[in-house]
Amino acid sequence: MRIVDLIRRKRDGHELTREEIQFIVRGYTRAEFPDYQMAAWLMAVLLRGMSGTEIAVLTEAMLHSGVTLDWSDLPGKKVDKHSTGGVGDKTSLILAPIVAAGGLLVPMISGRGLGHTGGTLDKLESVPGFRVGLAPDKMRDVLRKCGMVLVGQTEQIVPADKKMYALRDVTGTVESPALICASIMSKKIAEGIDALVLDVKTGSGAFMKKEADAVHLAELMVDTGVRIGKRMVALITDMDQPLGLSVGNALEVIECVEVLKGGGPADLCQLSIELSAWMFYLGDKTRSVSEGRKLAEQVLANGSAFEKFCEVTELQGGDSGALRNLEKMPRARNRRDVPSQSSGHVQAINCEQVGIASLVLGGGREKKEDSIDPAVGIILHKKVGDAIAKAEPLCTLYYNADQRLAEAESLIYSAYQIGTDKTTQPGNLIRKVIEGRSDERTGADTKVTKAT
Amino acid sequence: MRIVDLIRRKRDGHELTREEIQFIVRGYTRAEFPDYQMAAWLMAVLLRGMSGTEIAVLTEAMLHSGVTLDWSDLPGKKVDKHSTGGVGDKTSLILAPIVAAGGLLVPMISGRGLGHTGGTLDKLESVPGFRVGLAPDKMRDVLRKCGMVLVGQTEQIVPADKKMYALRDVTGTVESPALICASIMSKKIAEGIDALVLDVKTGSGAFMKKEADAVHLAELMVDTGVRIGKRMVALITDMDQPLGLSVGNALEVIECVEVLKGGGPADLCQLSIELSAWMFYLGDKTRSVSEGRKLAEQVLANGSAFEKFCEVTELQGGDSGALRNLEKMPRARNRRDVPSQSSGHVQAINCEQVGIASLVLGGGREKKEDSIDPAVGIILHKKVGDAIAKAEPLCTLYYNADQRLAEAESLIYSAYQIGTDKTTQPGNLIRKVIEGRSDERTGADTKVTKAT
Repeated sequence: MRIVDLIRRKRDGHELTREEIQFIVRGYTRAEFPDYQMAAWLMAVLLRGMSGTEIAVLTEAMLHSGVTLDWSDLPGKKVDKHSTGGVGDKTSLILAPIVAAGGLLVPMISGRGLGHTGGTLDKLESVPGFRVGLAPDKMRDVLRKCGMVLVGQTEQIVPADKKMYALRDVTGTVESPALICASIMSKKIAEGIDALVLDVKTGSGAFMKKEADAVHLAELMVDTGVRIGKRMVALITDMDQPLGLSVGNALEVIECVEVLKGGGPADLCQLSIELSAWMFYLGDKTRSVSEGRKLAEQVLANGSAFEKFCEVTELQGGDSGALRNLEKMPRARNRRDVPSQSSGHVQAINCEQVGIASLVLGGGREKKEDSIDPAVGIILHKKVGDAIAKAEPLCTLYYNADQRLAEAESLIYSAYQIGTDKTTQPGNLIRKVIEGRSDERTGADTKVTKAT
Repeated sequence: MRIVDLIRRKRDGHELTREEIQFIVRGYTRAEFPDYQMAAWLMAVLLRGMSGTEIAVLTEAMLHSGVTLDWSDLPGKKVDKHSTGGVGDKTSLILAPIVAAGGLLVPMISGRGLGHTGGTLDKLESVPGFRVGLAPDKMRDVLRKCGMVLVGQTEQIVPADKKMYALRDVTGTVESPALICASIMSKKIAEGIDALVLDVKTGSGAFMKKEADAVHLAELMVDTGVRIGKRMVALITDMDQPLGLSVGNALEVIECVEVLKGGGPADLCQLSIELSAWMFYLGDKTRSVSEGRKLAEQVLANGSAFEKFCEVTELQGGDSGALRNLEKMPRARNRRDVPSQSSGHVQAINCEQVGIASLVLGGGREKKEDSIDPAVGIILHKKVGDAIAKAEPLCTLYYNADQRLAEAESLIYSAYQIGTDKTTQPGNLIRKVIEGRSDERTGADTKVTKAT
């Protein structure tokens, strides 16, 4: 088998075999052929696409490029959620405790924020002492003790993705649904889970601005997971405005604690419960999604979800006292309200610009190497559909250094669109549900069904 | 300007600007960005294509990556021919002397054979002493003295193509009409010519098996040349069977001498005269192509074309005595007739297989590094439409070593298709003529017109 022939075959639109795809992934990971051949192949994949079979095979080949986690000695189903990322998207910190409190295991591996989107690891690290880099034994220990663990990616898991992503980043081959799908799914399946709930964001703050693109990616991921034997669902959810009211690491943790204590913004509560409900259902904890919702509401109401979050925080070296007394969370030295320049109703909020405003205050990274300030961020006072008077604050900026304050303010002004239409309302939070069902009769045959 | 953005723009099907294409070619030639980014861009070009403007700009950018030849101090128009390559395609050795004898200058830079096709340089080197690697001063000297010179590519001419072609060869990006066009045209225009005649082959022995592909490439090349200010024509010619009767280096030179002396196979004479006629016309030597034909026939009949070939041979270190007395040309030690296994008429000859048969006898190269035997090859006795009796020879193999003789013989048998249809005739030798005309009124505006 020669790599140049496989490049040509994909270039000409042919479907590659399992052996051919394994040859490519294995050969590239082991540096048996050079970057320039992989770059040509990746561009051919981006422009020619891949069949469902090819994507599943690619995902499995990437998965087996490194170690995979195995929790089969721990009783109970292992479930996780993956979000494609957004602004104020903090549901992981809420639903992992809910689902662990409800009796399933959540071995969650998360990422850091980059660009306008935040990352779960950065949020967790704003809790004093919280450590996301655990050795494998320690990870197992935490998971066994409290039913959940919240850690970062290690070098040993899916090394093929690390190498492929670095090359895609510099060769214009990031934006391939097939490659995005295989990258996400290989890492999630390496966690050793039985079921996965996908939160695929669409709107002005999402990577996929168009709903059709989000649906397409969601279908690919659900189909891929099902082919590999996982129970799968994808929720297509709104990211046309930030989720909840807070954007920024410690500010978001504080909002999560509010939700875990039974308060918090309605949209954030609703989405956290919905995602948890699907995790309960796919993890065979409840017989239906609606029973899952009830279980989620119950563990929120009885305080066991909040206690679970405190428990995992202690086990991972963090100070749960900061969760019980939020004054101990990092606080920015300064705050400034951004007053509305006109009166009317909020017609739209450009979500990506709000994310960048938080970034320029120091709450995010432009480059991977940048350090972040856990305390800074934004609390929104108005969301889409809200009435606002002139000079009333749109939001409050929390900051330590003021050199980019004017830039953040100007981003907020351009993000908010105030108008006279009083009837404007935000779109549905959950736009579509794409459920994966494997056909029991044949085993191998898979179907993806949709419900709006 | 960042290369990754230019990869993305081409990937998404946008037209690149002159500055962007120059940035890519210059940057790659100077190693300012790595092979893997160029590989991704080349694959995007292959799959997205390029506009006529982009191809012309790419051609010029490649052209200016190295030195260009300048013969403006030598009086008279400079013309050349380029063939896309075939089996038994030896017209360069005939038409260069014809056109030089007719009073134009022919600064011809040729290539070597690879795979099933022969190369002009290899054929010339079968003439004892003939040197194709001349220093620039010597090249000028030969061109001034006899109106023609026959040399190989140097490192200084279009270095961008050398580097790009090496990368295309290993990344599945050879088969892009835009890239093929820019590669050929940049090298030809670097010769410092005023007009170019293209012989674009189609059929079983050509790189482009389908006529539509040959026409498409011919249109791109004609259009590109016209945009850069050259007079252009492309002849789409038949390569469904070998041209003439001889295949192999010295055997082909001998056949050329026969044509230059007024004999030789009809198809080879016809095509050589036709291509010469267009060179005379585009080089303003004659007012029409038909006058060009008459001039070509005249210099063949009066012996001046043959004398011109002897003259250039002497100037380039060769022994013209071998052309005057063909017994002095390299001769293979052995010959063997390949008898027909049936009687009937020749229905078709798979031209590529005949080329490979010559290669396995030692007359061609499988890899660039292979050495060749100038003496070996094949002389065909039967072509398409000819009647043949059982046991009558299809062809004669000329060979020195017999280890691959059986393989050559078997290739000949599978190449010849003998059948009962007596009416089969070869297709038209010249299938289409694609003439380039620049619109005199606007200067820049160009048109490509076709005549069958």
